[in-house]
Amino acid sequence: MIEDQLTPPYYAVIFSTILAKNISGYLEMTEKMEKLAQKQKGYLGIESARNEIGITVSYWQTLEDIVAWKNNFEHTAARNLGREKWYKKYQLRICKVEREYGFEK
Amino acid sequence: MIEDQLTPPYYAVIFSTILAKNISGYLEMTEKMEKLAQKQKGYLGIESARNEIGITVSYWQTLEDIVAWKNNFEHTAARNLGREKWYKKYQLRICKVEREYGFEK
Repeated sequence: MIEDQLTPPYYAVIFSTILAKNISGYLEMTEKMEKLAQKQKGYLGIESARNEIGITVSYWQTLEDIVAWKNNFEHTAARNLGREKWYKKYQLRICKVEREYGFEK
Repeated sequence: MIEDQLTPPYYAVIFSTILAKNISGYLEMTEKMEKLAQKQKGYLGIESARNEIGITVSYWQTLEDIVAWKNNFEHTAARNLGREKWYKKYQLRICKVEREYGFEK
């Protein structure tokens, strides 16, 4: 799903990943974390796609909201498990969204 | 491919898309535009994934580089063709990358 027009300025976390060969338990954890993220303060939305690599972009009202989500207890445990088991490589970028344009037929 | 660690601050363009049913010519044009983007001033890299939706993130040194790429003649023609033929919906977000973290096994 694409998130509709949001109102800048707000923040985006771009999480680009390459998975390990054995991803047993990964999809369940992803779903659980997406549901948990939706309940956090400042959550605005999420977009996700995967083929050779995965890109998940989550949107947040403020930098503080991103830090709070980073420090969430269950999220921290999931991230540690991800580093141990599921991720071969990732890059995480925290960005301020300044401008936005939409198109729909 | 995931882009390795870049040096903030720099800019990201998050382009989230839903394609039309008939995407004849789309893949060829995407490849052509990615090659053309690589030759532009300020280009830093690109990441792309697609399943239900597509997410392409391109990275640029400055906002001016993004505007110049937007106004590139061939890119403008491709974008017009995209709106006419290939995209059912898209959202484009221009962001300043402020922080970045990497992990690799």
